[in-house]
This record gives sequence, C-alpha cells and structure tokens, in this order.
Amino acid sequence: MSLLVVGSVALDSVETPFDKVEAALGGSATYISLAASYFSAPVELVGVVGDDFPKQYTEMLERHNVDLEGLQIIKGEKTFRWGGKYHYDLNVRDTLFTELNAFENFNPVLPDRYKKSRYICLGNIDPILQMRVLEQVSDPQFVVCDTMNLWINLMKLDLLKLLKKVHVFILNDSEARMLTEEPNLIKAAKLIRQMGPEILIIKKGEHGAMLFTNDTIFSAPAYPMEIIFDPTGAGDSFAGGFTGYLHKTRDLSPENIKRAVIYGSTMASFCVEKFSTKGLEDLSYLQIQDRFREFRKISSFNETD
Amino acid sequence: MSLLVVGSVALDSVETPFDKVEAALGGSATYISLAASYFSAPVELVGVVGDDFPKQYTEMLERHNVDLEGLQIIKGEKTFRWGGKYHYDLNVRDTLFTELNAFENFNPVLPDRYKKSRYICLGNIDPILQMRVLEQVSDPQFVVCDTMNLWINLMKLDLLKLLKKVHVFILNDSEARMLTEEPNLIKAAKLIRQMGPEILIIKKGEHGAMLFTNDTIFSAPAYPMEIIFDPTGAGDSFAGGFTGYLHKTRDLSPENIKRAVIYGSTMASFCVEKFSTKGLEDLSYLQIQDRFREFRKISSFNETD
Repeated sequence: MSLLVVGSVALDSVETPFDKVEAALGGSATYISLAASYFSAPVELVGVVGDDFPKQYTEMLERHNVDLEGLQIIKGEKTFRWGGKYHYDLNVRDTLFTELNAFENFNPVLPDRYKKSRYICLGNIDPILQMRVLEQVSDPQFVVCDTMNLWINLMKLDLLKLLKKVHVFILNDSEARMLTEEPNLIKAAKLIRQMGPEILIIKKGEHGAMLFTNDTIFSAPAYPMEIIFDPTGAGDSFAGGFTGYLHKTRDLSPENIKRAVIYGSTMASFCVEKFSTKGLEDLSYLQIQDRFREFRKISSFNETD
Repeated sequence: MSLLVVGSVALDSVETPFDKVEAALGGSATYISLAASYFSAPVELVGVVGDDFPKQYTEMLERHNVDLEGLQIIKGEKTFRWGGKYHYDLNVRDTLFTELNAFENFNPVLPDRYKKSRYICLGNIDPILQMRVLEQVSDPQFVVCDTMNLWINLMKLDLLKLLKKVHVFILNDSEARMLTEEPNLIKAAKLIRQMGPEILIIKKGEHGAMLFTNDTIFSAPAYPMEIIFDPTGAGDSFAGGFTGYLHKTRDLSPENIKRAVIYGSTMASFCVEKFSTKGLEDLSYLQIQDRFREFRKISSFNETD
C-alpha cells in the first residue's frame, strides 16, 4: 500500500544572505515526497504543473521512486511560481511574488490505484483541495495534514471541516496561536485537538517541535545548525519524514510516533542545509540514522550515572 | 563549604492577567537562594535592603537555611522596589517603576567566612557589583553568572571583563543575540564562549534551555504549563536550582551538568506556578524529583522499542 501525497509543485526563486536561485524545484508535495521517499516507496504524488516544468525535475523525482501518474501537466500553462527573500535573521521571510499559473484551476483527480491508499499526507494547499483529495480515497486510515497562516486567515471554516477527518495535524506555533487566539501553546494544543485531530504537532523552527496526543506531550529539539542555507521546505520535509517513517513501520504506538517526530526533524535539518530540494536528493539511510542518533545525544539525560 | 549568592533583594509589585500583588518578596538573590536551598545548605546571601524590609521575609529565608549575615540592612532607607505588568501573552512585560532606594549605593562587603566559598552564583545585578563580590572570594572554583539586557546595553565592557572570570554564564536568547549581534543562536553561543565562560546556558522561556560546553550541546525542554501565574523570578530560580544541584553533587561531568540544567528548569517551573516566591517556599525534595522525572518523560525517545 503506497503513501499518497498531495500539495503544490512549484518553481521557487529564493534569495538568502548566502546565495540565490531562480526557478528551482519547490512546492509542498515535492518536499514531502522526497523526504518520505527515504522511508516509503513508491510515494504517489498528486499535483499540477505547466508544460514548462523541467524534465530534469520529473526525472529526479522518479529516481526517488515518486509515482508521477497523479501529476497533471497542463498544456499551454506555466508552473506555479513563488519568489521569496530571507533576511539575515532567517526567521523573517518576505514573499516577493506568487504566480499561481497552472495551480489556479487545479482540480485534483486521483488515478484509480491511488484511491486505495491508506496513508495520506495532505501537504500545504487550500483546504478545499485537501478535502477533495481525501474524498476520493476509499478507506483512509491515517491522514496527516499540514497548513499555513494564509488558510487559517482566509478559509478557516473549510480548514475546520477538514480537521474533523484528520488524524495528525501539523502547524507552526504562530499558526496554532492564530487558529485558537490563545497565546499559551499548551492550551492552544488542547483546543486544536478538540477540533478533531487526535495527534497534533506544533513546529517551532529553531526551537524544535512538540507532539501532543491523548496522553503524551513530547518535546523534540531542533538540530543545532550554525548555517541554514535555505529554510524553504523545512516544514514540508518534516511532514514527509514523519509520515514516511510511520508508513514504513505501520506502528502507531506513542513511542513510535515520537520517533517519527525525530525522523521528521531529521529530514527538515537535511533540507535546510542546501538550496531548494538539493539537501534531500542524495542522502543515504545511514546518514539519516546517524542524524537521528545525534538528536538523541542532544536531548537525552539520565537521572543518575 | 557553602554556596555564595549575590543579587538583588526586592519588594515587587506585579500584575498579571490572573491577579496582582503589592510589595511581595522578589529580587534575583532571593529567588536564587530559595531555589538553591533545596539542594545546598546553608546558602550565603549577599545583598542589601532598607529597614522597611518585612521581618516575615527574613524569617522565611532563614527557615530555608539562607544565611543572612551578608544581607545589609540600611537604616532610614527603603528596600529596592520594582513594579511590572505582564500581558495576556506572558512573554511581554512592562516595567511600571523601578525605585533603587537602598540598592543605589550598594557596596557588597562579604563577611569573612563567606570569603572561603568555592561555589558562587552571581545573580543578575550590575556587573561591577558582581565583580566586586567575586574579588573578595579567596579561591573561587566554580562561578555561575546571570545577567540581563540592561547590563548588556549599558555596561558591556564591565560585563565582558567579568565574563573572563566566570565558568558558567546564563542569559536568555534575545540577550545572547544582543550581546553578539548574531541572529543564529548556535553561532552566538560559540561567540559567547570565546568571551570566557567554558559553559554557556541560553534560556528560551517557553522553549526550554540550551547548554553549550566544549563538546556538548544539550537541549532541555520547558515544562508544559497551561497557566503561568507569575513569570517573575523564573530565570533566577533556574540559576539557583542549577548551581545548588552542582554544589550539592560536586560533580562537573557533562552528564551531571545536563542534570543540573533540568533541576534548574524544574525550579523555574515551580516558581511560575504561584505569585512572588510562594512557589518555592513549600516544596519537598520528592516533588522536585517527580518533576525532574516528568522532564525525562517529555523529552526521551528510543531508537527502537
């Protein structure tokens, strides 16, 4: 049974204090699929691009066993483009432009065999589209959903409707506060879990991530990095690593979900080490496990020697 | 050998969204001594108050085996007073007033037996005063130093001079960025350690704390709290729990320093559960150990089951 991923596929122009790239591969579905591909194969991608989408990118995704039957290529249209600039303090980002192009009229249609997927990762796109994908799946068993501030602002009701069908909801700390209008994150987490998702993950960037379940609060550290080359896609890579690991292990015990959070954090840390998707293109499973162990080293302590 | 603590002793008027208090016990030396008193006895306090300082407060400190021979009581002067207001988002605080009073001409003079102390916690006060205390100690073995944004802004050169004589420096994330003008915390930590302190702790409030030593980065979670009644003194309580535990155990191994960070976080979490010093007045060592274990539960994960 494959892992189904929906989200954006984009060409990103990104500027950071270190470098800049033009029309590099990006988009939530791209990052999620690549990060998940190290755990699950194949990953079924649902998305849309224009006929300007470079062949080298489809080839790279296929090399990672990403199934692209669900990637619509719209003739005469251009691929979704996003331009952003990060400042010296990488927590601050300006969107320079957003050209929806082929994405504007995206109507996700799942190839028949995708409909049998049990594990689904709804990457960050309009919650109506996320719902439309979910409705085509015959028996969704484990649904992970990511979002962003834009949808909380503009489409809160659609998002709330979707949350009732979601098992794991992932968002960042400012989004959690925005969604609940509650400054205390622990209270905000409680309120969000009442909206539907049994499992909630709040991403906190350089401060790591927190996992909330019925009986667990788990605090995962961030990987300590002196240089972050390009923060784009970190959250998507987290979602991909998290979902991919759970899809691989099929173990939804609290202990294994904690491990999935660390694998998500691991993939996010690799993502930001290079521009665009480069940090996720050439990893070995050994590298991933080594970094997982580094996360343990950073956060473990004992009561006595 | 006792633990020597210097800092402010104050009467605080604090308002939060939950309640308000007038002229309640506060000050960095007070919180540090109380938090440390659960690990080390006696704690030798160096500070100054006016003759308006309520007897009930000296009695309470003495009940916790805090040695007050080093607490100067200035006749005809009033005790240092601070007034602050916390907003709904408790990360934001306004100082309403600061009356230095007896503190204005504070000249710390150590009673002779204090001079033999080996473990010293320099609580947050003017770095010139911190230095003046340190210079009176005959053979300081382990010096912990806390500070605040005010001294980084106004007395950076004095602070830098002091840092060369300090083994552990504690400050918060925004202060670390301010001191180094470096937004990346991992880089900032490296720069600060080059200023002198072998061990650096960066407090991150609701995001926990980070420990940096020569070969260790350790990320400690915050205790998840739905209601923080009064954040005043949390950082001081951290310093007190941290130093007190190390003074008690006399073990400066990396593993034990990590534990000290968790004991510091534990004392900070008790501090903010009640107004003023109330959260630190009636604890049992069993309660402290239980919470220490909760920190383990929050942050531990294994590679396999």
